[in-house]
Amino acid sequence: MVECVPNFSEGRDGEKIRKLEAAIASVAGTLLLDTHADPDHNRSVITFAGPPDAVAESAIRAAGKAAELIDLRSHQGAHPRIGALDVLPFVPLCGVEMDDCVALARRVGKAIWERHGIPVYFYEQASLRPDRVNLAALRSGGFEGLREQVRLNPDRAPDVGAAGLHPTAGAVAVGARQLLIAYNIDLATDDRTVADAIAKAVRASSGGLAGIKAMGVLLESKGRAQVSMNLTDFRTTPPHVAFEAVQREAARLGTRITDSELVGLIPEKAVDMAGGRDLRIRYFHGGRILENRIAEVLSSRR
Amino acid sequence: MVECVPNFSEGRDGEKIRKLEAAIASVAGTLLLDTHADPDHNRSVITFAGPPDAVAESAIRAAGKAAELIDLRSHQGAHPRIGALDVLPFVPLCGVEMDDCVALARRVGKAIWERHGIPVYFYEQASLRPDRVNLAALRSGGFEGLREQVRLNPDRAPDVGAAGLHPTAGAVAVGARQLLIAYNIDLATDDRTVADAIAKAVRASSGGLAGIKAMGVLLESKGRAQVSMNLTDFRTTPPHVAFEAVQREAARLGTRITDSELVGLIPEKAVDMAGGRDLRIRYFHGGRILENRIAEVLSSRR
Repeated sequence: MVECVPNFSEGRDGEKIRKLEAAIASVAGTLLLDTHADPDHNRSVITFAGPPDAVAESAIRAAGKAAELIDLRSHQGAHPRIGALDVLPFVPLCGVEMDDCVALARRVGKAIWERHGIPVYFYEQASLRPDRVNLAALRSGGFEGLREQVRLNPDRAPDVGAAGLHPTAGAVAVGARQLLIAYNIDLATDDRTVADAIAKAVRASSGGLAGIKAMGVLLESKGRAQVSMNLTDFRTTPPHVAFEAVQREAARLGTRITDSELVGLIPEKAVDMAGGRDLRIRYFHGGRILENRIAEVLSSRR
Repeated sequence: MVECVPNFSEGRDGEKIRKLEAAIASVAGTLLLDTHADPDHNRSVITFAGPPDAVAESAIRAAGKAAELIDLRSHQGAHPRIGALDVLPFVPLCGVEMDDCVALARRVGKAIWERHGIPVYFYEQASLRPDRVNLAALRSGGFEGLREQVRLNPDRAPDVGAAGLHPTAGAVAVGARQLLIAYNIDLATDDRTVADAIAKAVRASSGGLAGIKAMGVLLESKGRAQVSMNLTDFRTTPPHVAFEAVQREAARLGTRITDSELVGLIPEKAVDMAGGRDLRIRYFHGGRILENRIAEVLSSRR
């Protein structure tokens, strides 16, 4: 079983998000597990899983549907992005290895170009070049910046479909990676620079904790700054450790945590590791645990 | 996902076997993967998988249905057995640990007694006593022998339901164990003692290969002796290594292998390890590979 967690550049229009879900669920064998839409990020993250071939077909259809529904020329949001379907990672859950997910990513990337005419960059384990392993570096400049740079600098050309970005759908970053936990912590301040400072203090790349990627974001609808994180090695740095690190830094900067959110699902192991500590996760319930959710969805169909 | 591989003492009556399958498949979330019926063993092995709660309920229903359909007083067959549903192992596939399968086995064992009045012995990882880890020892004497011994010797009383065996359904051995490969090799002889000698030479308990359990069986319908094996550590001793060991011993004893069979499914890893060697497995095809079969069954339902 492979997990796939596409990030779409649409977090506000519920009807469009339902259509993206429907495109994914239209393949037999695919289990639709979770949808997380964020109006400030203007982004939604759909989590699904299933046998490799089913997941691949769902992903290809999702890329086409996103191109049909989303026009990046009029897209505004707090999160960096290069595509209508922005990021498309494949994650080995069980019975498959990372190698299988790399092969799947490459196959899906090729099909997205061939079927929909949207160029593709490969990242993380699926990357073809060392300077494209890191998603943030690959995505630098965003849709608008990358669109210009591709014209001027052959070194930024897509890995598949060399003709430049799609005029409205941009490009898709297709990757293979281990399971991660997307975890955001909201602060009792509307000063984004505070969130940036905390992100810098806790993230691995600037000497913080192993496996934390973090950036500061301003949530305009709430008037709050947020530390938006990916925990890429949750066995070493689980959410409660990230929470406590952010809490310490926030106190040092004269603010505090209001609450937090999971984007998508959390593996049971990470919940066990938290040992009952209150991380103030909004809307947390048993169905947010990956293993439980797969069991629920399997048991709801015959 | 948990795998469950019940062995039933009925391998001849197709209609009864269909009813056992139907009882298992009657639970939402359970994926029916494979049925292997053997008229000489007079035994069938049904492989299914799913979320723990679904698998547990299917297993409990299967125990009741077996008691309804099978009367051990009139059962004859080449394979040792103590119950209508004889053996009920739970196997961690993914997202669950051995501990979870042990807890599941204990819960299901209790329910089989409470719902159907059939006593239960726990074996392997689920065993409560060191002398019940080994299934062969637990099952010694078979239904007829154990039925008498339970009356005379309190030390052989079931773990759940101390009142003695069920008059027609016997008892169920409920266990938790790692994935194994049930692999039988047929010989060009009708002399069971030859199969016994080969079994003794290759099995771990008498100094053979790691992870091989083996016994000799006579297949009366074919007039052939068979080395019936469980490969409990296929990463160390995969089927092709067992095949070659049996082949050597057979040659030494003046006979040869005719062909072989898988009972149930084989993990992809073991197929890869065989590297294209011909093990003369009857009716082998891609759907006999566990991972493929789960993908097939998932993709066949919506």
